[in-house]
Amino acid sequence: MDNKSLSTGGFTLPGEAGYETLTLELAKKWGADVIRDSDGTQLSDEIIESDYDIYSTLCLVRADNEWAKANPTKLQQCCVMSKPVTAATATVEIDLLEGYFKEQLVINSDDAPKEWWQVFDRTSGEEVPADKWSFDKDSGTVTIDGTTKWHRYTVNFFCYRIWEEISMYNHVTNDWGDKEHLMPIDPIHPEARDQIRDYLTKWLDSHPHTKVVRLTSMFYNFWWFWGDPAQQKFIVNDWGSYEFSVSTESIRQFEAKFGYRPSSEDFVNAGLYNNSYKVPSKFYRDWMDFINAFVVEFGKECIEMIHQRDKLAFVFYNDHWIGIEPYNERFKDFGFDGIIDGIFSGFEARKVAECPAVSVRELRMHPYLFPTGVNGAPSFLPGGTPTLECKSYWVDIRRAILRKGVDRIGFGGYLHLVENHPDFVDYIEELGKEFRQLRNLHHDGAPREMPVKVALLTAWGNTRAWACCGHYNHGNYYNEVMEAVSGLPIETVFISFEDILDGGIDPSIDVIVNAGLVDDSWSGGEYWKNAKIIEAVSEFVAQGGGLIGVGEPSAQRHSTQYFQLSDALGVDRELGLTSAFNRYPFEAKSEHFILEDASGPLELGKTIDRVYITNPDTMVLAANAATPTLAVKEFQKGRSVYLAGYKYSPANVRLLLRAILWASKNEAQLQSWICSNANTECAYYPASKTLVVVNNTEEKQSTSVSTDQGQKSFELEPFATLIEKL
Amino acid sequence: MDNKSLSTGGFTLPGEAGYETLTLELAKKWGADVIRDSDGTQLSDEIIESDYDIYSTLCLVRADNEWAKANPTKLQQCCVMSKPVTAATATVEIDLLEGYFKEQLVINSDDAPKEWWQVFDRTSGEEVPADKWSFDKDSGTVTIDGTTKWHRYTVNFFCYRIWEEISMYNHVTNDWGDKEHLMPIDPIHPEARDQIRDYLTKWLDSHPHTKVVRLTSMFYNFWWFWGDPAQQKFIVNDWGSYEFSVSTESIRQFEAKFGYRPSSEDFVNAGLYNNSYKVPSKFYRDWMDFINAFVVEFGKECIEMIHQRDKLAFVFYNDHWIGIEPYNERFKDFGFDGIIDGIFSGFEARKVAECPAVSVRELRMHPYLFPTGVNGAPSFLPGGTPTLECKSYWVDIRRAILRKGVDRIGFGGYLHLVENHPDFVDYIEELGKEFRQLRNLHHDGAPREMPVKVALLTAWGNTRAWACCGHYNHGNYYNEVMEAVSGLPIETVFISFEDILDGGIDPSIDVIVNAGLVDDSWSGGEYWKNAKIIEAVSEFVAQGGGLIGVGEPSAQRHSTQYFQLSDALGVDRELGLTSAFNRYPFEAKSEHFILEDASGPLELGKTIDRVYITNPDTMVLAANAATPTLAVKEFQKGRSVYLAGYKYSPANVRLLLRAILWASKNEAQLQSWICSNANTECAYYPASKTLVVVNNTEEKQSTSVSTDQGQKSFELEPFATLIEKL
Repeated sequence: MDNKSLSTGGFTLPGEAGYETLTLELAKKWGADVIRDSDGTQLSDEIIESDYDIYSTLCLVRADNEWAKANPTKLQQCCVMSKPVTAATATVEIDLLEGYFKEQLVINSDDAPKEWWQVFDRTSGEEVPADKWSFDKDSGTVTIDGTTKWHRYTVNFFCYRIWEEISMYNHVTNDWGDKEHLMPIDPIHPEARDQIRDYLTKWLDSHPHTKVVRLTSMFYNFWWFWGDPAQQKFIVNDWGSYEFSVSTESIRQFEAKFGYRPSSEDFVNAGLYNNSYKVPSKFYRDWMDFINAFVVEFGKECIEMIHQRDKLAFVFYNDHWIGIEPYNERFKDFGFDGIIDGIFSGFEARKVAECPAVSVRELRMHPYLFPTGVNGAPSFLPGGTPTLECKSYWVDIRRAILRKGVDRIGFGGYLHLVENHPDFVDYIEELGKEFRQLRNLHHDGAPREMPVKVALLTAWGNTRAWACCGHYNHGNYYNEVMEAVSGLPIETVFISFEDILDGGIDPSIDVIVNAGLVDDSWSGGEYWKNAKIIEAVSEFVAQGGGLIGVGEPSAQRHSTQYFQLSDALGVDRELGLTSAFNRYPFEAKSEHFILEDASGPLELGKTIDRVYITNPDTMVLAANAATPTLAVKEFQKGRSVYLAGYKYSPANVRLLLRAILWASKNEAQLQSWICSNANTECAYYPASKTLVVVNNTEEKQSTSVSTDQGQKSFELEPFATLIEKL
Repeated sequence: MDNKSLSTGGFTLPGEAGYETLTLELAKKWGADVIRDSDGTQLSDEIIESDYDIYSTLCLVRADNEWAKANPTKLQQCCVMSKPVTAATATVEIDLLEGYFKEQLVINSDDAPKEWWQVFDRTSGEEVPADKWSFDKDSGTVTIDGTTKWHRYTVNFFCYRIWEEISMYNHVTNDWGDKEHLMPIDPIHPEARDQIRDYLTKWLDSHPHTKVVRLTSMFYNFWWFWGDPAQQKFIVNDWGSYEFSVSTESIRQFEAKFGYRPSSEDFVNAGLYNNSYKVPSKFYRDWMDFINAFVVEFGKECIEMIHQRDKLAFVFYNDHWIGIEPYNERFKDFGFDGIIDGIFSGFEARKVAECPAVSVRELRMHPYLFPTGVNGAPSFLPGGTPTLECKSYWVDIRRAILRKGVDRIGFGGYLHLVENHPDFVDYIEELGKEFRQLRNLHHDGAPREMPVKVALLTAWGNTRAWACCGHYNHGNYYNEVMEAVSGLPIETVFISFEDILDGGIDPSIDVIVNAGLVDDSWSGGEYWKNAKIIEAVSEFVAQGGGLIGVGEPSAQRHSTQYFQLSDALGVDRELGLTSAFNRYPFEAKSEHFILEDASGPLELGKTIDRVYITNPDTMVLAANAATPTLAVKEFQKGRSVYLAGYKYSPANVRLLLRAILWASKNEAQLQSWICSNANTECAYYPASKTLVVVNNTEEKQSTSVSTDQGQKSFELEPFATLIEKL
């Protein structure tokens, strides 16, 4: 196949049995080189035996429901906190699964509750001794004696998960009716591993035409509690959390390896669990390490089996991805050939594009070919506008893949759903061609970057490079900033507080960004009480580094300051306890390099209120009533920028770029290879002397770019991509 | 004098030497029975010898500046935290008074710094050992050795106060030029007490015509740090804080009495000091008790001297009022004859009206006869509108004194300033008549109250009854609620958490209101971690009580809940650490008793965001996007109401009244003696069978009231008061 072809290749089509003609027609029109199946669809022999490469999806932990039904104690588990119940008498009975989805969870009473469970008085914060409570298996309730009236009580308990969550979602979304519920088995048990080996062997035997085994994914799904449908559909959904790797057996094995047994409360954490917004505890880091080592070890074995049959192994960067951790050291040991993720945004595209140790990086585009999207809105149902939807995602994804290329794109789901959307069918043909052009540019050589290196500082660091808590968390300042930088011509790295404590700040970093809310893992939470962190970041700025704080950077309720870096930032926040204090007056001055492209007031989304300047030298560039929303300060040889909020938008992308350049004293970088109109962006590929200019809006735009050959002007249609050889 | 006269009496006029004709003319026109002097004005013999009673202001601690100058170690002091300085090297020099107003403070180096001062590393939170720092008296600096780079350091040190703050304010506001700065002496020293006794004796000798000694006030001013004028005018102003009672000598005497010596940090508290928003510590309660006992003891002695000369002693409920505490047990021991306060609002009027143990309660109205008001805006200068200003205060004050009467009103300042404002001169004549009518109604008998008792629950309780942090703290939910209830026909009491811990909740209380922000003294802060409080309040509601939470009621970062009463309130708040969690969906239903007078969306001021319902039974009545702003819930036999914000306005007064009646199951109370139009209010005085209807707006209003004699309709001019015998 011609790797440079603009009409074919780098495209994965979801085939569908019963729609063979459509499958083959669209494969041709869209330039597909690969046909795949999806959860709920099969490929017929006609498709499998066509000339296309075949990707076959395989989810090993839900693949053999008969075995699962025969081995109920080998199902996956999780640790659950019952909903708080307020004591109205001296005895409280708690229905453990009240509020949860009973088709997802059943109580694990096989492992002795008194050994594994804990009961808490959440009013006093104290644990209730085991002799004060009892579990009734038949009713699924715990009865607590000697309760204090009006205190609230919860039970931490273990459950088996009896409906594999992704399959459950697909089942419910597509009304699969009485189709059997698939159950997830846990390879932590040797018997389950044996079964998976057997199953995989047979599966490989029976899939001679499969070129790529598309694993979705390894063994443990991200955390997803569903609710009692009468009350709420979902309780929690956290793409990064390991709660579904927790079981009595995994705890036993952890204890054998690490020498201590975590309690149920180590997982439940007073209802916070170990969610992505919580700064990970030492224990939780151990747990992630334990699961990661296990997943890599057994995953590697499965991949070797696939390779032995001369098939490739690609992994889906989602669903049962827990423990895979592409950005961690062990990932290369899997031996994956490719990685695929279903994405909507620029930061997610970068997450795939920069995945190490694989040969193929593929983006599964949206809308997924399902009647409705993940938020329940129609995609291909009447009322849906799949073409516009796809374009709006592409605008964000395109920015990112202008900077770092990927190898393939594709779709998933029910192909027949596109039949009534001829505009979508045509648009995807166009999209494929546009994608291939951009891919080819990267093959010729990397685009120009500004000589500026930005580090996003969080409690997660590189482990969650280009990731947050799942798909785009709108309103999360860190996610908004990450989305903005995903399309900037600037090197971006992800560092953690542990990195700083271990080895200081890499001197090649020019600007550190800290964005988040007090206590959360994105701002860094309790790390900001650690004087070593304050010393290191302050020294970095004092020596000439740039610091950008967004929202509540460095915030902790600690000592006299709230923003622990308030002396470098020049601002702090009133918490309501010092309302009687006056603050330095200021006048917002909008004449500043950072605001030179701004027209009209900043729209930073929801901003942090009650901010005040801590130093008469702090220069306020924008304010909302009496609260600064953008302020800058020199600190020793360095510069800092404070933004009280941030929302990804073309105007704010430019604002952030300017803030980065000002903070790092690289203002001159804006003089060339930058679009005059902030609604447009460009990338220059020196090896191929090619300039790409994109329109990030759904309106026409005029723009110009200062190049080596002088100023070039462009007129762009809505969403357009112009590619010009200079 | 005719106590029932509508044209004369109950009115205090500020006289001014040099304007004798004006003084006597206005005394007649306004119906004054008393003429007073003010800070900066004298009364001439012509005035003093007129037929009017004479109030003479006297501030004992700033009365004899010669003695003060001769005894600089007997000046009042305070403990100050220097502005934080960030270490850029291993040695840090701190200019202690940097940022402070050097005409207010001089460093006390008479009491050994190493014994009294403390130096802190505010980054680590640790104290710097005394051998690591040294004080240089000449430069007023502390040098710290062995500092850690980029940590920030502060010094707690003691100062003398060399310009008495109220006099300083009057001096600066009125451009008194080179008039000598008056200095406050501290009666904690026996020598100063002797001097005050001598001075008072001579003063009484020289004021034979004075009927009332108007003390302003006793000995210690509320806390008021001024700033370096180049940076900011004021640093902090807290009417309730005892910081200006602190001195090395008072600490020595405290230690002798209480058996322990507080450290400088006990006063400074990492920069919070002991401000009114901070939940008072055990130590601070001891300190207040100590100062209160001292002020009462020596104050009583002074008042006895005044009484021995057959003069009356009135006290000004402001300025040097610290330690007086009218709502505390000891207040009656002073033997004051009257109390006066300068007020703007309804809650302040109630503070005076309900002051115990005095015969005369007087409101000093605003605008004060100064060129500008306390916020610096013009009052009698060009651009000022003193009549409208006075009317707008009166609307709020009138609501309050409809419920609880006071005996007198008056003004203060420079009388000649009114000369160019004939409309003001005429309005005050009217105002005097209106005031006398209302006063007379109370003399005949109290107005009708609904059989509902509301308790405002704060960390301060009755000690700060009808008070917050000074004049109206707009935006402070507690203050906004207090202002609203000050004009409701409902008994209001103030309770503290210590009251509940000591004696439980008074069973006569129908509704508890908790309004404030997390950690602050108004919500109650850390008291909400105390299970005994949760038990008592929950039991109160469970047994049929009403609970109204405003803002962040019962909030603490503690255990699984943030609103510690979230089970009773039915709502809680997302802090950003559980953003991955879904919450129960709700639909706002506006058909509810509480909203029956509401037209259009609620305007509750700034509201708490990220509120969610914790129970499917919680009924949301109003919401702002996805966050409930008004929700109600039944809890056992009781009812709770949650308001995400609150702002005093006619519509919100009615909303709060309805919330109180709903929470206490007293909905039927709304069927009579209530205005149909929420912009108007009424009070009924059964003894005199008189109905008063007031218009709280500057527009005309129509309203009706259901009375014993059927529905009565009224048309009210802007701001009007209608008084009708039924």
